Amino acid sequence: MTTFTAPTIANIENKDLRQQLQQIIDSKTKPLGALGRLESLGLQLGMIQGTTTPHIEQPQIRVFAADHGLTKHGTSAYPSAVTAQMVYNFLQGGAAINVLARQHNIELKVVDAGVNTDFANSPFKGHPQLLDYKVRHGSRDALSESAMTNAECLTALESGMAVVNNLAGNLLIVGEMGIGNTSAASLLLARLGDVPIADCIGRGTGLDDVGLQHKQSVLTQILQRHQKAQAPLEVLAALGGLEIAMMAGALIQGASERRILLIDGFIASSALLVAERLAPGVAQYAVFAHHSVEPGHAHLLKLLQAEPLLDMDMRLGEGSGAALAYPLLQSACAIINEMASFSDAGVSEKDS
Amino acid sequence: MTTFTAPTIANIENKDLRQQLQQIIDSKTKPLGALGRLESLGLQLGMIQGTTTPHIEQPQIRVFAADHGLTKHGTSAYPSAVTAQMVYNFLQGGAAINVLARQHNIELKVVDAGVNTDFANSPFKGHPQLLDYKVRHGSRDALSESAMTNAECLTALESGMAVVNNLAGNLLIVGEMGIGNTSAASLLLARLGDVPIADCIGRGTGLDDVGLQHKQSVLTQILQRHQKAQAPLEVLAALGGLEIAMMAGALIQGASERRILLIDGFIASSALLVAERLAPGVAQYAVFAHHSVEPGHAHLLKLLQAEPLLDMDMRLGEGSGAALAYPLLQSACAIINEMASFSDAGVSEKDS
Repeated sequence: MTTFTAPTIANIENKDLRQQLQQIIDSKTKPLGALGRLESLGLQLGMIQGTTTPHIEQPQIRVFAADHGLTKHGTSAYPSAVTAQMVYNFLQGGAAINVLARQHNIELKVVDAGVNTDFANSPFKGHPQLLDYKVRHGSRDALSESAMTNAECLTALESGMAVVNNLAGNLLIVGEMGIGNTSAASLLLARLGDVPIADCIGRGTGLDDVGLQHKQSVLTQILQRHQKAQAPLEVLAALGGLEIAMMAGALIQGASERRILLIDGFIASSALLVAERLAPGVAQYAVFAHHSVEPGHAHLLKLLQAEPLLDMDMRLGEGSGAALAYPLLQSACAIINEMASFSDAGVSEKDS
Repeated sequence: MTTFTAPTIANIENKDLRQQLQQIIDSKTKPLGALGRLESLGLQLGMIQGTTTPHIEQPQIRVFAADHGLTKHGTSAYPSAVTAQMVYNFLQGGAAINVLARQHNIELKVVDAGVNTDFANSPFKGHPQLLDYKVRHGSRDALSESAMTNAECLTALESGMAVVNNLAGNLLIVGEMGIGNTSAASLLLARLGDVPIADCIGRGTGLDDVGLQHKQSVLTQILQRHQKAQAPLEVLAALGGLEIAMMAGALIQGASERRILLIDGFIASSALLVAERLAPGVAQYAVFAHHSVEPGHAHLLKLLQAEPLLDMDMRLGEGSGAALAYPLLQSACAIINEMASFSDAGVSEKDS
């Protein structure tokens, strides 16, 4: 199998810088630790950027869209056509992620990783927010073959890297749209995390009990079929979606450029798990935005030793949870850069 | 005892409007309920404002500052002088709440409810962000007398109402600064909520174990001394702080004007409990911003049947948790007003 060569990921650990940041935070006019997770978040952002003055500029969202061959087995509540329809919705500015991106001035583009529609024959041909990295018209049916050939998988990873390479700004959100992609993410989690499939799956966009049982049965068969796939790249090719592979590439490139990676929910976290296995160290650059309702997410978060910022009972994807959490990161930077210290402000410290 | 006459608080419940809002939310291009608490938040904001198009304009923070007579018994980790020092810090823009208010364009003013300092003799005399509603130089020592006389307590409540009366905008955050005010809030919670004092207290701005035990002993004595105070106004006068009374008045006035009340942590929640007891219905207008680390807060939240938006391990006060949560309310409004519906966007609904 042709292999993937990951770029260098710098280790963010730096004892001196960590101490300096902690001293700056502790000198602010507040009781020690009183800003809780806002303080640890600020410290992490400083470590990621290698500075005592972390700042965010020109934040970017890329929403990766693709269809999934396995949806032919009826594992999703919505028809596959919704993937392309939602791409149109993104391009018209009407989806949740558009609303949240506008609110926070985050630049949003949609990446066609493998939607089963020919956008060149649509009214959106050449739309400035639509980036064409289509590998094929949807992934293959993982029940009968690998979801991607080795070459397709490498192309998807490299395309994800290309999307982020030299991108403006220093913060990246990868969102996704792909009917069937909770199934792909569950498969990746089951295999890479060695978690029973029953614990990895949920109702996706809204399955009922019968639908959920059927989904479990199909996914169990897929895992059996690809028993031999154990190395990260093989697992990704056998089970993953085109958008998830491309997101993993984007995250790897983002980490190699020391970008803050603001991680959305279940699908984005599965892409991060893949990225971390392909390029150890990527996860150091991750800030986890929210805890998704999708049951597998708790397992993913545990594997990634992650504590998300928000818990809003959300399960939309698109990057929506990440966009919602974004202002907390701005707050964490502002606290470090703008708050007065006890000595600046002439405030008495705690009685000894 | 002279009584407090509360203004009319309108009941926000309106079955037709609730249904309309729910229909609008359910028609948006997302799986049913996929935006979780952002949806229920949007619905609540619509109900508070009595509209299907909730919006926030000119949000306001008022930070109420006062000193506490009971600090003479050594119940706080910081000296009382810090209250005035922090007021100066607010007026110079260096505190956490300044940073967060600037980030979100929230107008911030500081209300002197009873700081033990004469600001007229300070360089900040006449500062446009400092509002003089000083009732007295700190509350009385609740261990030897009522924290406020009946007249002082009524003046504080009425001053809080005056601060908010005809204020610009439609969203109010009440923050506070007052060394000793976690003690006052704990006392109010213990008496009004019938909660054992040991469950109501915490380390405030940073007490050690011995300090915590001492605090419990002093507060227990105070509760015994004011055994007869049971009606809300009597309890507030006997145990409360000047800033807490003024915050309660501000919240009552805010609800009477149908403002969104974005509630910060432990102290602000104790003021809301007082407000709700004095003017039933006020709590309908409350959105709970965050879960404070201060142990009594969990009991207060339970009493108020509240589920806060954030849980960031914070315990600073000033309104900081509320300011941090503020963009989530903007998001909830934007989702309702700006997201496309399935029919707008030509997206297929769920398979039946």
